[in-house]
Amino acid sequence: MAAANAVVVDLKFERREVDRAVGEAFRDRMVLHASDRECDLSDARYAVVWKPGPDLFRRAPKLEVLFSGGAGVDHVLSLPDLPDIPIVRFVDPSLTTRMSEWVVLQCLSHLRQVPAYLRQQRDRVWRELPQPEAREVTVGIMGLGVLGQDSATKLRMMGFNVLGWSRRKKMLAGVETYDAEGLDKFLSRTDVLVGLLPLTDGTRGIFNNALFARLRQGGALGKPVFINAGRGGSQVEADLREALRTGILGGASLDVFEQEPLPAGDPLWGMDNVIVTPHAASATDVRALFRHVERQIGRYEAGDSLENLVDRTTGY
Amino acid sequence: MAAANAVVVDLKFERREVDRAVGEAFRDRMVLHASDRECDLSDARYAVVWKPGPDLFRRAPKLEVLFSGGAGVDHVLSLPDLPDIPIVRFVDPSLTTRMSEWVVLQCLSHLRQVPAYLRQQRDRVWRELPQPEAREVTVGIMGLGVLGQDSATKLRMMGFNVLGWSRRKKMLAGVETYDAEGLDKFLSRTDVLVGLLPLTDGTRGIFNNALFARLRQGGALGKPVFINAGRGGSQVEADLREALRTGILGGASLDVFEQEPLPAGDPLWGMDNVIVTPHAASATDVRALFRHVERQIGRYEAGDSLENLVDRTTGY
Ligand SMILES: NC(=O)c1ccc[n+]([C@@H]2O[C@H](COP(=O)([O-])OP(=O)(O)OC[C@H]3O[C@@H](n4cnc5c(N)ncnc54)[C@H](OP(=O)(O)O)[C@@H]3O)[C@@H](O)[C@H]2O)c1
Ligand SMILES: NC(=O)c1ccc[n+]([C@@H]2O[C@H](COP(=O)([O-])OP(=O)(O)OC[C@H]3O[C@@H](n4cnc5c(N)ncnc54)[C@H](OP(=O)(O)O)[C@@H]3O)[C@@H](O)[C@H]2O)c1
Repeated sequence: MAAANAVVVDLKFERREVDRAVGEAFRDRMVLHASDRECDLSDARYAVVWKPGPDLFRRAPKLEVLFSGGAGVDHVLSLPDLPDIPIVRFVDPSLTTRMSEWVVLQCLSHLRQVPAYLRQQRDRVWRELPQPEAREVTVGIMGLGVLGQDSATKLRMMGFNVLGWSRRKKMLAGVETYDAEGLDKFLSRTDVLVGLLPLTDGTRGIFNNALFARLRQGGALGKPVFINAGRGGSQVEADLREALRTGILGGASLDVFEQEPLPAGDPLWGMDNVIVTPHAASATDVRALFRHVERQIGRYEAGDSLENLVDRTTGY
Repeated sequence: MAAANAVVVDLKFERREVDRAVGEAFRDRMVLHASDRECDLSDARYAVVWKPGPDLFRRAPKLEVLFSGGAGVDHVLSLPDLPDIPIVRFVDPSLTTRMSEWVVLQCLSHLRQVPAYLRQQRDRVWRELPQPEAREVTVGIMGLGVLGQDSATKLRMMGFNVLGWSRRKKMLAGVETYDAEGLDKFLSRTDVLVGLLPLTDGTRGIFNNALFARLRQGGALGKPVFINAGRGGSQVEADLREALRTGILGGASLDVFEQEPLPAGDPLWGMDNVIVTPHAASATDVRALFRHVERQIGRYEAGDSLENLVDRTTGY
């Protein structure tokens, strides 16, 4: 059957962009769009998905490998009727680079007091503010995976003092690392907390009151700053708003939220020193995604192991 | 005389900060504050200055070395009655790091469309904007001295494509460089222009209409962006405002201005995609400045050559 080496695409991305990328990446492979309700997916062995339709697995019962359209797989692991097949997540230099752009931008923005300078600009006020140097500020990264490690390296290079925290201890040049046990020590030294964690049972609601209260007070920036580009489910937004209001936190940069889009009535939009971006820290480049899928299918069909496999026990 | 190895300090910095730094750096050296009008400076051999009083050189006729309180020396070379003695400018890792923080912050801000996202945040609009990656954007740096080279290296590391331009051609890993002759070629490939030039006869008014018009149109950001942290005298602000209004430029980040403070009535304060900071890209750290002065005096008195000497012919 023609559809046997086909890839089902079920992505909530812009169709025109997807079509263009399909042409580039899948030269010898049929592409079936799950959004075409008439399309017969019954023999397809591969699917690449981001928030797929609820009947995908009924329509495509012969899937052998499932590809996530993003680095995170919380949206995949929670799908109803998820078959017991390998899940490959998206890892790619373009995704990593974009995330580090965003993380470095946010850390520099708080270091260099961008919100305060923008208020001065709006009021046409010319006033130099006290200016600590990057090395006087410690950035602590929670989640030292593909994204966290690249951000750590680039923050180091910009001069920041950098700490990292992950489930299993990592070795990373110039970065002091902690494992799960070391959380207290890690937090007590952190001025700017960067969240790059996947959403799992172990990380849901981890950024809460108790955690914010353990960050270093009185560092070079005065108050700690919270930056999150992992998943919104990891932060307790009621606690976050409270911490910003009471001054336990001095500022935040948020790309992810408990509910997305962030409702227009949410106070976070308008709070002092809070920078909001619409889950855009590192959007998947569809061309890079399809190249990655094609490469992995190539490995799979040649009998090689799939890369970046998800571990269902840990949930990432 | 006690004052023979004294240093005259004539800086427009905060006095308390200066006093603290003096204590740290000049343990065995007397410090004479030019702001004390009674103070006898007549035997002093060294002075460190930033916008000094007009009678400094009459009060201190035996100066042997003049230290600039900043990296730029345009404010020194234009002093009336400037004696013909060596002038040492301020070069220090803390100054360099801070400048690179600012330059990388501004380049990332335009790459990641910070002004547009901030407008969306103000209006509580959740909308993802098209997002080129750093490597699709070429940053061209005019002035590849101490500051320009460090910025170039860090921008490369963040993924940008980087070009450099200077009077004499430089070699710099990963950066394509041009000398004075190559300006046209350099500009035609540049999406984001970064000015890190000293103010001299050769650079006054160099950022003008004719130059803006030669920048690449239609790069990944759509329109070119102008970033300046060198000196305001290098930019023709009438041309700059015009270029921003007509769309020859798509945005700017400005730390320096023809007139400082930038007058409250200046339209630059309120223009779309223009980021204004109050000559704060890289403030001199007084402690680092005095350590540098002490080190150079040490070399001088030991018969070694002074470092970072200003060339009066070229003006920097
Ligand atoms: N906002 C955006 O635009 C955007 C874009 C892409 C990705 N993301 C998010 O970023 C997340 C990270 O991506 P990645 O590629 O870096 O993932 P990754 O390579 O799987 O790294 C995850 C890191 O988190 C650590 N971790 C996981 N659970 C933990 C726990 N319970 N306690 C302590 N550490 C824990 C892991 O520890 P070990 O090293 O010990 O395994 C690892 O260091 C994704 O899951 C996704 O949610 C967001
Ligand atoms: N905004 C702030 O807070 C701030 C802070 C510190 C400094 N600054 C400014 O930054 C400037 C640069 O500092 P720096 O330490 O990097 O100076 P630098 O080491 O002397 O470098 C100056 C660079 O400009 C180039 N240049 C000078 N005149 C030129 C001309 N006519 N044509 C082409 N290239 C020319 C030089 O070329 P060659 O390499 O061939 O000599 C050199 O590459 C300072 O002069 C100061 O005005 C601003």
